[in-house]
Amino acid sequence: MKKILLLLLALSSISSYSQTDEEILKKIYTQSLTNGKSYAWLDYLSNQIGGRLSGSFQAELAVQWGKEELEKLGLDKVWLQEVIVPKWVRGAKEYAYIESSQKKTTTSVNICALGGSVATNPLGLKAKVLEVQNFEELQELGEAAIKGKIIFFNRPMQEDLISAFNAYGGCVNQRYNGAVEAEKFGAVGVIVRSMNLRLDDFPHTGSMTYDDLPLEKRIPAAAISTNDAELLSTALKLDKNLEFYFKQSCSQFRDVLSYNVIGEITGSEFPKEYFVVGGHLDSWDLGDGSHDDGAGVVQSMDVLRLLKASGIKPKRSIRVVLFMNEENGLRGGNKYAEEAKRKGENHVFALESDAGGFTPRGFSFDCSDANFNQVLSWKPLFKPYLIHYFEKGGSGADVGPLKNDSNVLAGLRPDSQRYFDHHHAANDTFDAVNKRELELGAATMTSLVYLFDKYGTNPLPKQSEIKN
Amino acid sequence: MKKILLLLLALSSISSYSQTDEEILKKIYTQSLTNGKSYAWLDYLSNQIGGRLSGSFQAELAVQWGKEELEKLGLDKVWLQEVIVPKWVRGAKEYAYIESSQKKTTTSVNICALGGSVATNPLGLKAKVLEVQNFEELQELGEAAIKGKIIFFNRPMQEDLISAFNAYGGCVNQRYNGAVEAEKFGAVGVIVRSMNLRLDDFPHTGSMTYDDLPLEKRIPAAAISTNDAELLSTALKLDKNLEFYFKQSCSQFRDVLSYNVIGEITGSEFPKEYFVVGGHLDSWDLGDGSHDDGAGVVQSMDVLRLLKASGIKPKRSIRVVLFMNEENGLRGGNKYAEEAKRKGENHVFALESDAGGFTPRGFSFDCSDANFNQVLSWKPLFKPYLIHYFEKGGSGADVGPLKNDSNVLAGLRPDSQRYFDHHHAANDTFDAVNKRELELGAATMTSLVYLFDKYGTNPLPKQSEIKN
Repeated sequence: MKKILLLLLALSSISSYSQTDEEILKKIYTQSLTNGKSYAWLDYLSNQIGGRLSGSFQAELAVQWGKEELEKLGLDKVWLQEVIVPKWVRGAKEYAYIESSQKKTTTSVNICALGGSVATNPLGLKAKVLEVQNFEELQELGEAAIKGKIIFFNRPMQEDLISAFNAYGGCVNQRYNGAVEAEKFGAVGVIVRSMNLRLDDFPHTGSMTYDDLPLEKRIPAAAISTNDAELLSTALKLDKNLEFYFKQSCSQFRDVLSYNVIGEITGSEFPKEYFVVGGHLDSWDLGDGSHDDGAGVVQSMDVLRLLKASGIKPKRSIRVVLFMNEENGLRGGNKYAEEAKRKGENHVFALESDAGGFTPRGFSFDCSDANFNQVLSWKPLFKPYLIHYFEKGGSGADVGPLKNDSNVLAGLRPDSQRYFDHHHAANDTFDAVNKRELELGAATMTSLVYLFDKYGTNPLPKQSEIKN
Repeated sequence: MKKILLLLLALSSISSYSQTDEEILKKIYTQSLTNGKSYAWLDYLSNQIGGRLSGSFQAELAVQWGKEELEKLGLDKVWLQEVIVPKWVRGAKEYAYIESSQKKTTTSVNICALGGSVATNPLGLKAKVLEVQNFEELQELGEAAIKGKIIFFNRPMQEDLISAFNAYGGCVNQRYNGAVEAEKFGAVGVIVRSMNLRLDDFPHTGSMTYDDLPLEKRIPAAAISTNDAELLSTALKLDKNLEFYFKQSCSQFRDVLSYNVIGEITGSEFPKEYFVVGGHLDSWDLGDGSHDDGAGVVQSMDVLRLLKASGIKPKRSIRVVLFMNEENGLRGGNKYAEEAKRKGENHVFALESDAGGFTPRGFSFDCSDANFNQVLSWKPLFKPYLIHYFEKGGSGADVGPLKNDSNVLAGLRPDSQRYFDHHHAANDTFDAVNKRELELGAATMTSLVYLFDKYGTNPLPKQSEIKN
């Protein structure tokens, strides 16, 4: 009997030193759900700092905060990486109305300047409006019809696409390229339907380009709420000669110095193989950037904390990178990749969370078939956590520049249905984030990092592949 | 060339008459996302009718509304089924505070009477408090300690469970049986920590029982918000002799007549094989019952509409049933099953949606292995819609009484993380429901109904099963 007891004791002590992957994942998820830091961090970042567009005072506060919080975690290194960023400032709140052609009655509508837009004349801009769905229609209408008018891009997000990101992808050229395209035909301004699947009153900002247009040819561009896009479209059907007035006072300043915030747990066996996990620290200015991308920032920070709290000593060097300037320049992502290349750092794996803090569903992977098969073999480990989505696809804008022929890039894929209700709008706020959903995301990211660190990113070729 | 064209035309016309299951599901989802009715219905039910506890005026309005809306759909039959329901009325808003033992300072707290509770004395009830986590602790404390006191059940929902419903299942006996258990030891009242994973100020009601306790022995029971449960617990640690005051004026009336609302598309081939799809029309009274179970009601209504709108003529008779009195009696579910049995109606399949209007993840099934394997064979059809959860388990309270040895019961399983933030509380309101999430649920239900109708619920045994 004593022998059996001793044997049982021995067995149990062995098992405590060689936990299965199932047990490690359980530990990670339990840590995150019962003792997570991501939600408290997000509370501070969202409610004490708020919206933090590149070059703003808040962005610099966020850099300082990120560095200080990472320093508290007892990582092996924490540092700032200089990044020169654009500085665009919205200025006074925008103002807009529709004026009927006959009785000159006016109806206020909700707009916001697109990020990077020029201001209107200080007294505002008033012109007749032409509604179009796409750039081909501009071509058909031609300069004679368009000259001197405001172009209203009103192609809605496609409702029957299951991924809201796909619906976004199908519309966003209106916002990004609309001004350049409309200017070619002599338009004086651009109004774009907000990238939002829901009908509501929030205008949604976001980046736009003038390509290499000289300053004097740049026309102001603004987003209009989906409700008001419907209103304007209906009004135009009744009154083709109505005029649209808007006034915005945004301006572009000289580039300024900012930073990526980086923390590292140095690897115990392969310290020169680098993993990156990150999100972007900058956000648009209208809300507090809780989903885009406060969530990704705090989840990425929590990955390193959760590894430590779960007793995992990574073999490879795991870095958290809080990227600056994803929204209107991607300077932080590009700078990080340039520096990595310059120093000859071997980045074997990078994971970004930049799709909101909603319930995680899985990941998409930019990697070889061999690595993807490796990931698929881990799928059963994630099943208890309802993580089921493992597909090839994009990763994240900030980690994208790290791509090479042999490494693995990945993006967390949360449920997308509500994301564009909040994206780049004044209602991207802390109350729209659910604590458990955020924590499940952090645990899911940590689990993937744990598995890739344990098994490496050089999977043995499968028997079938050797034979061929 | 002409021949090839004719052949192509012929092929295309053939394919339009024999659509694949992939094509049908695509049609159903597209219909629901672009032309769904569920969100507009829910708007009316939630915002024009509101909370609709059994026996209330609003419950009767909901019955009339449900019948009228179903009649507009051009179903083969629509009727009401009489159900005698309990009538419990909350009365004036509850009032509660904690009073310190020394200086008699008071702090207001948020409570609500549990459904079915008796009122306090009209002047309220004030007593010392004992906090416990479970019924075993009552036994340990014993009558001497408990007599004359209020028992405060404060076991929180377990945060590390992935399914919020499992966390609920681990706590709800405090609410349902707490008063009966505490009364055995002479307690004079019961305060229960709200079944909510989040810390906030909403008290969450829900059903409770007195078993067969005589009226004079019934003690009042209320839920306290999670924030105030934390407050009360902390206060008790500092001041064991504090007193808790609460006043509630709820009362139980005689049973009244109400109805299940039923609509039917009669089957074209097997009209005597019945399918039921349903949710419950009654709700608690604090919010407007949008998630519990307005969502299930409108999704179930939309299943029949979506079948018609997608050009599907079911072989079997498909009924939508809007059940009355799930929350505090299950009289509607029981009545429907009794009548089905009495009439010898063969109910081969029943699906309930009563887990909120969030993004659907899949279904749980109460059925044979053969039927479950049949379902698993359909899994690839659902993959484009990110529906991945197909597990054996419970179905729904209202359809449960239909269970027999050969039929299939199923429950829609939406994402559960946010459900208990709203469940049975004043914030279970329309704004907490996302249109697309609701519509995806309706399409997912419709797809399962379509497949079971097409292939029947008597799957051929698999080759492997025949061999054994």
